[in-house]
Amino acid sequence: MAPTGLWLIGARGSVATTAIVGLLALRAGLVDPVGCVSARQDFAAVPLPDWDEIRIGGHDVVDTPVEKRAEQLTESGLIPHRVFATVRSGLSAVDSEVRPGYHPATHAGSQADAAARLADEITAFARRHGLARVVVLNVSSTEPVFPALAEHDTLDALEPALAEPTRTVLPPSSVAAYAALRAGCPFVDFTPSTGVRLPALAELARREGLPYAGSDGKTGQTLLRSTLAPLFTTRGLRVRSWAGTNLLGGGDGQTLADADHAGSKLASKGRGLAAMLDDADVSAPLHIDNVPDLGEQKIAWDHVSFEGFLGARMSLQLTWSGYDSSLAAPLVLDLARFTAAAHTAHHAGPLAELAFFFKDPLGTDEHRLATQFTTLRDWAGSL
Amino acid sequence: MAPTGLWLIGARGSVATTAIVGLLALRAGLVDPVGCVSARQDFAAVPLPDWDEIRIGGHDVVDTPVEKRAEQLTESGLIPHRVFATVRSGLSAVDSEVRPGYHPATHAGSQADAAARLADEITAFARRHGLARVVVLNVSSTEPVFPALAEHDTLDALEPALAEPTRTVLPPSSVAAYAALRAGCPFVDFTPSTGVRLPALAELARREGLPYAGSDGKTGQTLLRSTLAPLFTTRGLRVRSWAGTNLLGGGDGQTLADADHAGSKLASKGRGLAAMLDDADVSAPLHIDNVPDLGEQKIAWDHVSFEGFLGARMSLQLTWSGYDSSLAAPLVLDLARFTAAAHTAHHAGPLAELAFFFKDPLGTDEHRLATQFTTLRDWAGSL
Amino acid sequence: MAPTGLWLIGARGSVATTAIVGLLALRAGLVDPVGCVSARQDFAAVPLPDWDEIRIGGHDVVDTPVEKRAEQLTESGLIPHRVFATVRSGLSAVDSEVRPGYHPATHAGSQADAAARLADEITAFARRHGLARVVVLNVSSTEPVFPALAEHDTLDALEPALAEPTRTVLPPSSVAAYAALRAGCPFVDFTPSTGVRLPALAELARREGLPYAGSDGKTGQTLLRSTLAPLFTTRGLRVRSWAGTNLLGGGDGQTLADADHAGSKLASKGRGLAAMLDDADVSAPLHIDNVPDLGEQKIAWDHVSFEGFLGARMSLQLTWSGYDSSLAAPLVLDLARFTAAAHTAHHAGPLAELAFFFKDPLGTDEHRLATQFTTLRDWAGSL
Amino acid sequence: MAPTGLWLIGARGSVATTAIVGLLALRAGLVDPVGCVSARQDFAAVPLPDWDEIRIGGHDVVDTPVEKRAEQLTESGLIPHRVFATVRSGLSAVDSEVRPGYHPATHAGSQADAAARLADEITAFARRHGLARVVVLNVSSTEPVFPALAEHDTLDALEPALAEPTRTVLPPSSVAAYAALRAGCPFVDFTPSTGVRLPALAELARREGLPYAGSDGKTGQTLLRSTLAPLFTTRGLRVRSWAGTNLLGGGDGQTLADADHAGSKLASKGRGLAAMLDDADVSAPLHIDNVPDLGEQKIAWDHVSFEGFLGARMSLQLTWSGYDSSLAAPLVLDLARFTAAAHTAHHAGPLAELAFFFKDPLGTDEHRLATQFTTLRDWAGSL
Repeated sequence: MAPTGLWLIGARGSVATTAIVGLLALRAGLVDPVGCVSARQDFAAVPLPDWDEIRIGGHDVVDTPVEKRAEQLTESGLIPHRVFATVRSGLSAVDSEVRPGYHPATHAGSQADAAARLADEITAFARRHGLARVVVLNVSSTEPVFPALAEHDTLDALEPALAEPTRTVLPPSSVAAYAALRAGCPFVDFTPSTGVRLPALAELARREGLPYAGSDGKTGQTLLRSTLAPLFTTRGLRVRSWAGTNLLGGGDGQTLADADHAGSKLASKGRGLAAMLDDADVSAPLHIDNVPDLGEQKIAWDHVSFEGFLGARMSLQLTWSGYDSSLAAPLVLDLARFTAAAHTAHHAGPLAELAFFFKDPLGTDEHRLATQFTTLRDWAGSL
Repeated sequence: MAPTGLWLIGARGSVATTAIVGLLALRAGLVDPVGCVSARQDFAAVPLPDWDEIRIGGHDVVDTPVEKRAEQLTESGLIPHRVFATVRSGLSAVDSEVRPGYHPATHAGSQADAAARLADEITAFARRHGLARVVVLNVSSTEPVFPALAEHDTLDALEPALAEPTRTVLPPSSVAAYAALRAGCPFVDFTPSTGVRLPALAELARREGLPYAGSDGKTGQTLLRSTLAPLFTTRGLRVRSWAGTNLLGGGDGQTLADADHAGSKLASKGRGLAAMLDDADVSAPLHIDNVPDLGEQKIAWDHVSFEGFLGARMSLQLTWSGYDSSLAAPLVLDLARFTAAAHTAHHAGPLAELAFFFKDPLGTDEHRLATQFTTLRDWAGSL
Repeated sequence: MAPTGLWLIGARGSVATTAIVGLLALRAGLVDPVGCVSARQDFAAVPLPDWDEIRIGGHDVVDTPVEKRAEQLTESGLIPHRVFATVRSGLSAVDSEVRPGYHPATHAGSQADAAARLADEITAFARRHGLARVVVLNVSSTEPVFPALAEHDTLDALEPALAEPTRTVLPPSSVAAYAALRAGCPFVDFTPSTGVRLPALAELARREGLPYAGSDGKTGQTLLRSTLAPLFTTRGLRVRSWAGTNLLGGGDGQTLADADHAGSKLASKGRGLAAMLDDADVSAPLHIDNVPDLGEQKIAWDHVSFEGFLGARMSLQLTWSGYDSSLAAPLVLDLARFTAAAHTAHHAGPLAELAFFFKDPLGTDEHRLATQFTTLRDWAGSL
Repeated sequence: MAPTGLWLIGARGSVATTAIVGLLALRAGLVDPVGCVSARQDFAAVPLPDWDEIRIGGHDVVDTPVEKRAEQLTESGLIPHRVFATVRSGLSAVDSEVRPGYHPATHAGSQADAAARLADEITAFARRHGLARVVVLNVSSTEPVFPALAEHDTLDALEPALAEPTRTVLPPSSVAAYAALRAGCPFVDFTPSTGVRLPALAELARREGLPYAGSDGKTGQTLLRSTLAPLFTTRGLRVRSWAGTNLLGGGDGQTLADADHAGSKLASKGRGLAAMLDDADVSAPLHIDNVPDLGEQKIAWDHVSFEGFLGARMSLQLTWSGYDSSLAAPLVLDLARFTAAAHTAHHAGPLAELAFFFKDPLGTDEHRLATQFTTLRDWAGSL
């Protein structure tokens, strides 16, 4: 298979760095593909790019190189010492393919100019490495909620506005999505940011015949919830409340403790629960707290109160203790592989069949994990 | 529809009493069918007996009448005062249809004689109430593991042995199953006891064209496990250990704290976990403790240790706090309804499609709850 | 001993009603004094009023009589049916001693007038029942934080301001405290509201030679924290974060989910933790969520992350599932008894020795539960 | 102060190795004394040996040197890489002071001979390093319960039996204690093994004027229980059941999953709980499970069911996730320091004042952690 590119928006963050280190470790046979869905036996016959057929580059607004970030993750215990020692030299090669990301505060000129620069860099990357295709995937920090504008509705309204030198019509995630599509690349959003979720961008993807997927990778509390909610509904048990708390360290904790940024995250989490329980009014208070000492670890507590036969009051309590980057990174590789295969097979528009990976899946209202897996398996089998 | 009989082995126990009270309350419109799978919208078109088309009788070795047991369950908080007050008068009518159960210690004569007496009583019940069919369902206490005998292998070997006046060839649950089949009735085992799980009895069911189902109702920890295990496997995460503790009060706690009785229960729980994780060697210590003060409540704690990408160590912890009888009773009604419908539709042999209800399903190795539900829904739709 | 009065501010609320029902049940020998500190053997020799030497009256802004409230608590499972049935007739007698509480929205005239009316009603109650003394105890809903005013600093500044017909100088809890002291009665605040915690009121208590105590009864999460924090400090372990979530139903949940009311509660909880850990900067996010379906139940979750030798990362997780009124009510009776005894022994000013009962104890910075108990025991022994 | 010796029985195990690495790291100023009780401000004025006044040697039946064991603990994450790298060279110096431990299976000759050899080696160690005193401390694996013999009752009965060449009169821990006392050294037992807990050995200690302490270091579940039990008793709440499960990896898990070895551990845990709750009949099922994948980690789950006022049913649930060696190692250093100071001050017999450190304290029935701490602080202040 011709090599496939994976272009990461936020290429120097924790998730991206873990994915990069992991890819190099898989390629070197240092580790098993634990946590990689696409490596399951179910997908053995699907024409997916192999670990050594994937090339990584990306954009980032941060300067700290991938190697330095990987060193920090090693000290924090997320990456084993022996893995870091072995792949270390490969990391600077990847970092040499990282270009400055777009941020309105540091960019002079129109957003159209910015997008053109981003698209050019992706295209050049593809050319340099002789890539058949490049999947652009957003793993940058969650953005504050961006206001809806009339210009988002059609491409004809959007493009002139982008060209105005002083306007900020799109949030950075959507500039990245626009640039990706302009460069002829599929786009995947692993964050709850706006990204490709605007009518004008959907129109562009359709016009270009490009697939896209998102949004908000399902790696912790929501993963659990989408597994457990069907237990209650298929058994006819009445969920009365589902309260949750998330304790996060790292940069993520800091970003999400800011109510503005948390907004899009919490909304994305809430939508799925109500849909799965078929009860828009279930009491479901939810918090995200920044607890710096947790570092890369994430603790999620859920308390479900439910009613059984004759009104019996029962409860289920869960504590999930995980490493977000460890859970997210293999899914990033999975999404690159599945999206590349979908592109090869000429799929276009929202890849609803990838709902298994997302808190707030594009193109479908199906949130139940088991059902999502069946759909993924059947779809991948048809590629 | 012609009325359907539900004949409960252990008709005066907690589960049976809760099912009886619940049926009367449903019939009177006092409560919603919370916890009843068959009452879900998915099954609205299936030809199932209505609440007022079900008649209950049964066997029990215990003398305490159903009304007295219901009063105790009301005091313990399991049955609401207003429900008990309303259905009370109906309970003695049900109790008048309960006959002395079979127990080797109190029975003089051969097991064949005992089975004939049981079968006659079921047949008389059917005749008295003009029933189209009677589903016999075992909710009696879990038995100690019964040794395997050569006589269990064929009906030709079994029946002469049963006729010997001094031998105990079958445990009580299997005598009940044999009697049910002899009376032309489908048999369902909600306990982990031997029941119908003997080649000779399968042969009898086949010969008589009768369906049967079991075993061991899935109401707590195993219900959760069969929901959660697929999360790990479909995501490619490696479960390293899955430790569990069950705290039980009531009679169940006492019975199962006895290692002999616990044997069949623990074996039944373990088989499913290993199958679902596709790992026969996962470390999975499991305990059942008798904690009398918990009364009808059951607390189950699970600690799952799993490995993610690059060897990251993560965990999931669960605490389930439920009322076993509240969870089991609506399933007893569901099983009566689905089994009656299967019998009407001339299904015979093990009803693997009812695996959704059981820890150790007969006729299938499928333990994943979501998959089991899909199977149930599709099958019921075809009835 | 001459009978002692207990005058409850908020006499028709859950805590007060549970205390009233409980006192009647204790008097009738229906129940053991479980949860009553003063009934422990340690205090057998202390001259405390007996259960049948306590008379209850109070103020409330609510009209629902105590009997009705008790009926609701019985339905919710907090009060056993048999207890309610037995004490029912005594409840209307208590309710006949409840007078309309003070609320600025419904009161015409100066706050001085209001306080005079309240004081008169307490005095009349004492006279009617021939009481040696009356302990006034606040169990009404938590108030929003009241702004500090210069008039709060001295009695000379306060009293003229109270006499102005249109001013609201004090929150209702402080009007109640002022009225109590004016009537010559000790005052206890079981809530985090302002109450007696103003220099002018401390001055009044001193002048009148009256004892007072508070504030904010320690019944759940803080009770646990004041037990556990010393484990970490005496063992030299470093607490890195202590995150908490409270799920509350009932009226309390509604009141405290309102950020204004929660303010005083959360502040009161935070102060103690920092003091006990001797670390003002420990990361300690804390939430109170309203989860109506929990009714009278309260669930508190705590996650403590701590560091051991050589930097080892460890954690402790706790889930407390309790009934606030069941925990608070016996303490209300304890406080009435101990405060009455202190008054008899001519103690005046803040009763720091009662810190054992409070989240935010007056007159001391000691928050450690075990130390507080030793202090209480020694002090009571000296009465 | 003249240097003090610490002679570890089981010097190459996890706890000993962590203590050794920690002592070297403290001496080098690499780490803070987190988890060291004796380093608290409360004990600043007590004449304790400083970190650089302690010399370590010991006995072990295992051959793997301390350095190798430390390397394994570093790989498992218990010891930080940078600490290991710095102290590494010091570890072989310590290991050169480790002599073969006594084990009946490998020893030819009488137990008296064995004890004489052990005592000589301790004395030689003291002489080599010019030590004022040597504290002998047992951190070897928990032994199976050893049968009581008449010879254990007096020294006159014991010593002739020890001299018989073919008898095994004492378990290894008691041979070690006997040897220590014979060498004129205080003895501390950090394990639940028999050790010094025999009348004949108490007699010997008394005769020699030597202090001793034990037994079974309180580092996890029991530490928590001794903190929490007084909450319930001082508040007058009725504990109805206290169920617990321990998940252990490492060698400890393997040893304790063996019912014989677990016996002494479980008994030691149970005694304290019943004493603290003043209720010998509280239902308290307890398990220890071997879960190899947990490595050095230990997970303890406790479920406390308790009753409040008017019979309200409440619960507390706890999950402790710790590293046993990290919790134990600093206490080993503490015990060496406090016991040395007690010896210097001519204390003899059981050091009941060290109960704070033990599950099953010698010389006292006080199990409440807070009370134990007060006793320790006051006693240390008097040294």
